[in-house]
Amino acid sequence: MLYIIGLGLADEYDITLKGLNAIKQCERVYLEAYTSMLLVGQERLESLYEKKVIIADREMVEQQSDEILQNADKINVAFLVVGDPFGATTHTDLVLRANELGIEVKAIHNSSIMNAIGATGLQLYNFGQTISMVFFTESWRPDSWYEKIKENSSIGLHTLCLLDIKVKEQSIENLARGRKIYEPPRYMTTNQAISQLLEIEQSRNERAYTPETVAVAVARIGADSQKIAVGSLKQLQSVDMGEPLHSLVLVGCRLHILEAEILRSFAVDLPELDKIFARDFKMD
Amino acid sequence: MLYIIGLGLADEYDITLKGLNAIKQCERVYLEAYTSMLLVGQERLESLYEKKVIIADREMVEQQSDEILQNADKINVAFLVVGDPFGATTHTDLVLRANELGIEVKAIHNSSIMNAIGATGLQLYNFGQTISMVFFTESWRPDSWYEKIKENSSIGLHTLCLLDIKVKEQSIENLARGRKIYEPPRYMTTNQAISQLLEIEQSRNERAYTPETVAVAVARIGADSQKIAVGSLKQLQSVDMGEPLHSLVLVGCRLHILEAEILRSFAVDLPELDKIFARDFKMD
Repeated sequence: MLYIIGLGLADEYDITLKGLNAIKQCERVYLEAYTSMLLVGQERLESLYEKKVIIADREMVEQQSDEILQNADKINVAFLVVGDPFGATTHTDLVLRANELGIEVKAIHNSSIMNAIGATGLQLYNFGQTISMVFFTESWRPDSWYEKIKENSSIGLHTLCLLDIKVKEQSIENLARGRKIYEPPRYMTTNQAISQLLEIEQSRNERAYTPETVAVAVARIGADSQKIAVGSLKQLQSVDMGEPLHSLVLVGCRLHILEAEILRSFAVDLPELDKIFARDFKMD
Repeated sequence: MLYIIGLGLADEYDITLKGLNAIKQCERVYLEAYTSMLLVGQERLESLYEKKVIIADREMVEQQSDEILQNADKINVAFLVVGDPFGATTHTDLVLRANELGIEVKAIHNSSIMNAIGATGLQLYNFGQTISMVFFTESWRPDSWYEKIKENSSIGLHTLCLLDIKVKEQSIENLARGRKIYEPPRYMTTNQAISQLLEIEQSRNERAYTPETVAVAVARIGADSQKIAVGSLKQLQSVDMGEPLHSLVLVGCRLHILEAEILRSFAVDLPELDKIFARDFKMD
């Protein structure tokens, strides 16, 4: 059996009793460690599980998935995922591969940013499609997300923006020379995300959003150090959200008055926020 | 402190270690029991928690929330919610009321149908706004969800349809006479939901969807008895999904080939599904 087990968002105690019990039955335990991360290290997990945890990087999951699945038709193997098992396309691939090999798969669910974002006071049913934003480089500035924000915004919906993380990445030079030297991990901040958003709006100029658009910056959701800040994109551009992981929500104009009420409690500048609400939103 | 604790979806073991630990610190433990339900009863929770659990019905939560919050500035009180704490508007109300009373609130997240629906193979970032469908009565057939499905569908997104549950409801006669006699609980099946969907499409005729639209019926997500069935609305109308709770997804035309591959494994009639995919979807 392959157990794909969601770990939730913050630390080792966010696992469910069901998830922990499954791990106890497993001979090998892998931790997917490149699409997201907990705020605690591997050793904290190992100490709770009383098991060794094998870090599975992108290369292992995408190219050596048969190693993970080895013997899983006879023994139990755990594949741990930060958030919920089905947060990333990668894990769908693993399920398909297991199906091909005749290995039974069981998912054990947990919270993920996709539903925990409700902590902002925004109602989950008012969100449109989710976008992922990658780090721009000199030569690669992909903005296919712009169209999606525009679609959501045109029908008044909120957009959750998931921000890039880069772990165990090689520089182009090291990659070219086949040197297994890795760059330090990088996690996109809400400030970087807002810069990229505003750059693309400036060049496309289709008003999918503006510097005045109300947004919600979130960091470390589910942890004691969780931080939520609400303001215009322009205001949030200079707000320091602290340690990773960060996410950002662009607020749609169909905002409900109850949502607004909670957002107000996180305002970086309440009079300014109320001014934007009065000007741009028709709440009922 | 008021702890709002998500219980996850299926049984008592879906709680997180963090959630269980918080309950152990609480003097009173309430279970919100009218917007959703676990597949196990109150006594199973009480036995795991080693505490009495007070059932909080709609009346208590909406009209007597101060009773729940009593002394929560001095002692710890737990408010348990099936799924994630922020799944229902009701709980936002409770947070606002606690804020007013100067009571600290801590949410402990868990999976909810909003992210566990990823178990169908559909990617969460391809979902548009979520709709809620209530039981039609002779005189009340609200269909404001129709416009929302149409909006999602116009940009190719999936729509998650949450289906009504009625627990501890009074008949109009009993309500009028002030008799506290309650109707047996009712949980909308995917079959009933599809009938309502097709009825409204027939009268509005704006082709937000058709009987040929591909949909995913799900039941008891996260439980061992979980069932997922994929087919056209017409086909699914006669598929028995068994015990509650049921949900339904209308599949948007921007379906990715990886999503389609998993959907195929749940097809009620694979050749027919492949025919619809070939005819209606442009996958890449």
